[in-house]
Amino acid sequence: MFSSLEFNNNEPIYLQIENYIKYMIKNNMVVTDAKLPSSRDLSKILGVSRNSVIVAYENLEADGIVYTIKGRGTFVSKSKEDYKNGWNLSWDNMINSYGRLAEELDIVKTEIPWEKGMISFKSISPDGALFDIDEFKKSFLNRISLEEDKILNYGYAQGYKPLIDYLLEYMKQKGVSVENKDIIITNGFTEGLEMILDTFCNFGDKILCENPTHNTSIKIMKVLGLDIIGVKMNQDGIDIEELENKLKNNKIKFGYLIPSYHNPTGIVMKAEKRQRVYNLFRKYNIPIIEDGFNEELLYNSTHISPLSSIDKGGNGVIYISSFSKILFPGLRVGWILADKRIIDVLESVKRCKNIHTSFLDQGILYEYLNSGAFDKNVKRIRKVYREKYDFALNCINKYIKPDFIWGEGALHIYIGIEGVKSRELLKECYKKNVIFTPGDIFSVDNSCENTLRIGLTRLNLEQIEEGIRIIGEKVKELRERIRFNEDK
Amino acid sequence: MFSSLEFNNNEPIYLQIENYIKYMIKNNMVVTDAKLPSSRDLSKILGVSRNSVIVAYENLEADGIVYTIKGRGTFVSKSKEDYKNGWNLSWDNMINSYGRLAEELDIVKTEIPWEKGMISFKSISPDGALFDIDEFKKSFLNRISLEEDKILNYGYAQGYKPLIDYLLEYMKQKGVSVENKDIIITNGFTEGLEMILDTFCNFGDKILCENPTHNTSIKIMKVLGLDIIGVKMNQDGIDIEELENKLKNNKIKFGYLIPSYHNPTGIVMKAEKRQRVYNLFRKYNIPIIEDGFNEELLYNSTHISPLSSIDKGGNGVIYISSFSKILFPGLRVGWILADKRIIDVLESVKRCKNIHTSFLDQGILYEYLNSGAFDKNVKRIRKVYREKYDFALNCINKYIKPDFIWGEGALHIYIGIEGVKSRELLKECYKKNVIFTPGDIFSVDNSCENTLRIGLTRLNLEQIEEGIRIIGEKVKELRERIRFNEDK
Repeated sequence: MFSSLEFNNNEPIYLQIENYIKYMIKNNMVVTDAKLPSSRDLSKILGVSRNSVIVAYENLEADGIVYTIKGRGTFVSKSKEDYKNGWNLSWDNMINSYGRLAEELDIVKTEIPWEKGMISFKSISPDGALFDIDEFKKSFLNRISLEEDKILNYGYAQGYKPLIDYLLEYMKQKGVSVENKDIIITNGFTEGLEMILDTFCNFGDKILCENPTHNTSIKIMKVLGLDIIGVKMNQDGIDIEELENKLKNNKIKFGYLIPSYHNPTGIVMKAEKRQRVYNLFRKYNIPIIEDGFNEELLYNSTHISPLSSIDKGGNGVIYISSFSKILFPGLRVGWILADKRIIDVLESVKRCKNIHTSFLDQGILYEYLNSGAFDKNVKRIRKVYREKYDFALNCINKYIKPDFIWGEGALHIYIGIEGVKSRELLKECYKKNVIFTPGDIFSVDNSCENTLRIGLTRLNLEQIEEGIRIIGEKVKELRERIRFNEDK
Repeated sequence: MFSSLEFNNNEPIYLQIENYIKYMIKNNMVVTDAKLPSSRDLSKILGVSRNSVIVAYENLEADGIVYTIKGRGTFVSKSKEDYKNGWNLSWDNMINSYGRLAEELDIVKTEIPWEKGMISFKSISPDGALFDIDEFKKSFLNRISLEEDKILNYGYAQGYKPLIDYLLEYMKQKGVSVENKDIIITNGFTEGLEMILDTFCNFGDKILCENPTHNTSIKIMKVLGLDIIGVKMNQDGIDIEELENKLKNNKIKFGYLIPSYHNPTGIVMKAEKRQRVYNLFRKYNIPIIEDGFNEELLYNSTHISPLSSIDKGGNGVIYISSFSKILFPGLRVGWILADKRIIDVLESVKRCKNIHTSFLDQGILYEYLNSGAFDKNVKRIRKVYREKYDFALNCINKYIKPDFIWGEGALHIYIGIEGVKSRELLKECYKKNVIFTPGDIFSVDNSCENTLRIGLTRLNLEQIEEGIRIIGEKVKELRERIRFNEDK
């Protein structure tokens, strides 16, 4: 690093070395705490006497520019002057409305966080104990033996071909016609939804959805400046009359629906109703974005096909899904099945956003699916979640006695308690170390204030009973308080 | 699936079964090619005579609604009627300007693709043969043994803590002060840049950058509707006079710079120049986005610190990087180092976009870095690329004799040939199975038409010589053609 130092004949050598080191520090050619060459080495490098170097180092140390550690050498000090005069921009003022909304709607930041020792009914992420780690390791080793460095280098924006082919076949098994359709792999469902809205919507466009609905989807629509039209839910799903009304009277860009184990209500839309809903959207020529959320948990005995399967040979339904509520959500792999033209443009959009989804993760997931490990695993998972659900349902009926319980299983239970605001209930339960998700989070219009979602995946039966008992206790107290106030 | 069939007393049993199956098919309760229960099983399920079922199946088969495979059973036919009447939306017309631009600027779609047998100087992705697969496997196995299912479940938007801590230390080693700063993990550099622009810019904002510059960055700016102000490059990097002029006379939101092995020119900005450039941006209070691209390939002997390191204790430089040009780009892991307030808002933005980057990939990368495998590997990689570069440089001087060669190593060489349009040259070389990247792709104003980038990473020395020989031949032919035309 001393290669560009050229000595002149006017100044003493030690001073020239001193000044050059100062110059290097000033120009960031050496950094704080960097080790300088030993005096012996430097004298050789520069072809000068060792004494000149020693004097230069001593002067620099006296000025606080370098420091010495006995037996280790001479190092560059931190320059206090520089730090005092740091460039100071006010970044907070520079965040645009997109960034502000993303923060404002970020429930991780705004809601009560989980703390150790709490019973949290907030989560619906899968129970990690159900992951088959051995099969996962095997999948990794098999795939990397086969692909070697190829799977670690840049891949294709559309995704890993064997995984795409597997998922096309998988969707066919669900009864969806894949003619003129294709699949793109995304970083989970979230990216899939964002990409579609980003590519087809303009600021202020209207999206129709169930109300309540998946809070992340609401967030994505809001940050993109879209206008959300909610349609109320009944025990059997979206209200058909209100749906037709709103489809007829609004210029709607997309419908967004969660037909299976709807989040948060848990309702599975029946086959006949799916047909009616599809017919209505088609009648008004409004394409549907179908959220395949949790479809894998549907029990074999009541096979219900996705909305997409009704649209045989058509291109009016865009299907997005992931296995993230069952398999390895840490991997962030989801997919979109849609008209070829849609996948084509999304391929370019994906390349713009992040080139492609991790090929390693896609490769492992493919191997895991293709080996049959998934099929085996999903049966076990269904059984475990079914047990938790049935158990929790009993507890809710016993301890809470809500006014309604919707849905029919999977990862969560949605209940309504008339007269009791779930925010107030949450405040009381929090004091007893129990938390859940208040219904308003899923509402597009600040309604659903008397409802709550009870997520079951991360708790054992004992915790479930204890937590629900406490919620029930607090519901009773709040109901009594209300009655008391009414009597007054 | 026959659970909701209730028999009446008015119609024959076989007809009721027949109609119910039709109803199930119509309502997608059974899908195409699904197997129906055997007549024996169904008669038991329904508690009717086997004969009724047989008659129902026969009638359905006669109508083409089901089909039978001898010895295998009865299956649901594909309904031709449905397919004919598919919902047919014209998606192409529905793509918005963002989607259109993403496609238009997608060079994978618009440029000559690589074909088998070609010598392609287009790529600068790393040579997979340099990946240390054994160490990679070890990193995977170690990390998963330690973390087990935790690393496969949902993680944090900011990233995997051990990796963040490692990178903070890594940036400190580069001389960057990390006080009041933090790191967020992104899906590679591309997502990092997009997230920052998405969060701080508004439509029509001006971004100043080197001209030419990284084509993906140009694309991201354009699709987001930003206005790009290019500053010309000289042999030693950005033109200081023009830079000051443009900083002074425009309301600029960000500067975007690639100080080390600039893409496409390969120029490494000298330490003194870095200081001058930094001072200018600071004078006009315009924050810098520093692209740390390829910094890892800088040779130890000429240690040059990032622009961020000059900004000691300040917050005016946002640093984005990834190891994707050295290590496993298929994993898509990059990072942003910036003021805490920036990382804070980006955390919410990241959660909006795709929850987080694959925790598995972050875990493996962390293990690989922390084990020392990276340090060992990067030295070897530097050596291999240095050899390729030196060899290619000789070939270029021998066969092409360009008017200028810029840069000083790493993955590519940028050359200029006066009078020869690189697009025309590419057309001629393509006929001889040689392709490269014409300079205009990196230009913000359709200039650089006499330049080209020669990427070296994926070729061996023999291919490099052969390819450059062919380019040289074609350059000679084009020069002669030009001289001939001028003489006329």
